[in-house]
Amino acid sequence: MLSKVELYKFFVEPFHVDFTGHLFLGVLGNHLLNAAGHHSHNRGWGIDQLNEAHFTWVLSRLCIELTEMPSQYEHVEVETWVESVMKLFTERNFLIRNADDGRIYGYARSVWAMIDTETRHPADLLKLKDGDILRYLLTADEKPCPIEKHGRVRVSSDSPYRCIDTYYGDIDINGHVNSVKYIEHILDLFPREQYEHHRIRRFEIAYKAESHLGDALIFFCEENNGEHQVEIRKRKGESEIRLGELEKRPAETVVQAKVIWE
Amino acid sequence: MLSKVELYKFFVEPFHVDFTGHLFLGVLGNHLLNAAGHHSHNRGWGIDQLNEAHFTWVLSRLCIELTEMPSQYEHVEVETWVESVMKLFTERNFLIRNADDGRIYGYARSVWAMIDTETRHPADLLKLKDGDILRYLLTADEKPCPIEKHGRVRVSSDSPYRCIDTYYGDIDINGHVNSVKYIEHILDLFPREQYEHHRIRRFEIAYKAESHLGDALIFFCEENNGEHQVEIRKRKGESEIRLGELEKRPAETVVQAKVIWE
Repeated sequence: MLSKVELYKFFVEPFHVDFTGHLFLGVLGNHLLNAAGHHSHNRGWGIDQLNEAHFTWVLSRLCIELTEMPSQYEHVEVETWVESVMKLFTERNFLIRNADDGRIYGYARSVWAMIDTETRHPADLLKLKDGDILRYLLTADEKPCPIEKHGRVRVSSDSPYRCIDTYYGDIDINGHVNSVKYIEHILDLFPREQYEHHRIRRFEIAYKAESHLGDALIFFCEENNGEHQVEIRKRKGESEIRLGELEKRPAETVVQAKVIWE
Repeated sequence: MLSKVELYKFFVEPFHVDFTGHLFLGVLGNHLLNAAGHHSHNRGWGIDQLNEAHFTWVLSRLCIELTEMPSQYEHVEVETWVESVMKLFTERNFLIRNADDGRIYGYARSVWAMIDTETRHPADLLKLKDGDILRYLLTADEKPCPIEKHGRVRVSSDSPYRCIDTYYGDIDINGHVNSVKYIEHILDLFPREQYEHHRIRRFEIAYKAESHLGDALIFFCEENNGEHQVEIRKRKGESEIRLGELEKRPAETVVQAKVIWE
């Protein structure tokens, strides 16, 4: 049987760093999702393998907390493992460290559901493949992930901060705006000065609904004590909406996120 | 002495493919630039090595021509080499093939200049490091790159097709909009139907000037026989410009590009 922990390595490429020379958080998110993909694929739970049985993984939440962001030209290692499995959700954790000196940049937590691609209903993870997933569990006692679980995000503001159109490059193979693109659009809400003077200590995102090519994404934001909460709502198939033209808050929440700065 | 050709490998990740399951051209561009970076670094001509002597490479042109775009989960190999060196420019070519069966996806050509980061003046490539770069030349006879060199782009239209604001995620470590982001913004000009029915056979881009965080980018487009020409002009530090509000064509051209579909 394979080890319960998958090791995934990457190099911090020049085009993947921001103007401060640190890895873009969206690119880090992409690497974490790749690490998750390799872990599950190597254990018979990959999306490519599940597709044949018309099941697929859906990312529900992702939360990243870092004491340091990797810098250009650094070699990084990600460890990933499954901390818990419930009927409808599984929790997958990550440890992110420097591959050369072993110093730990931080940790991440994620929550996933499995859905039936034909009915769009959630599947019972404990019943699939005769409970095979339980063989890979590493409890919090066995392998700690010393960051808090996801919190709640509440944005009550009715004033949109930004509207953007979605384009070809936002869309993944399933035709949905891809999980990493939402992270990038949220980070684009902040001005240069924010990144010059502050570092993101913790980033949380919850995926509530899907949006599609041509939907307008509308960003509602609130700040409390250096903690930014962001809610993205969508308007189906509408483009070039201007802030002043939005007569009311659109109904459907797509994403909720929290950015905590240091 | 090192071989004149550098081999660079990559894997087509799930989050790097478009809704048709093919690699985003911007991501391929990023891989080509990485391959170039490794080739030059391994031969003492890397940006990190040149920075100490206050020189840096500037990408002037990139042109990619493909008979097939790599698909999700494929392993790809890129060969890169230097075809010519003149006083102010060097030409670097690329071959892109499948790592498993060797089939060739296509080729790419690029043109680079070296500038002095203090004076911003171009440097004489033939004089730097006593002409060391000439040791790595592979002429067109020795290693063919069977695609045409860069053509000319002329967009005479005065009607902007789209204006976009630039954000945190567009900017590289030098504080400029990064070369790959322009490619992505250009590809975002086309609607879903274009990608459903057509494939990009050839993409050309020429970098004319730098733009910065907060500049507005204004896209002018023209189509002739399935060939799209795009010119990006900038307005410094202006955001939320609407198409109808542009009283005249802004002066400074940042990028010129051509997209040829099959």
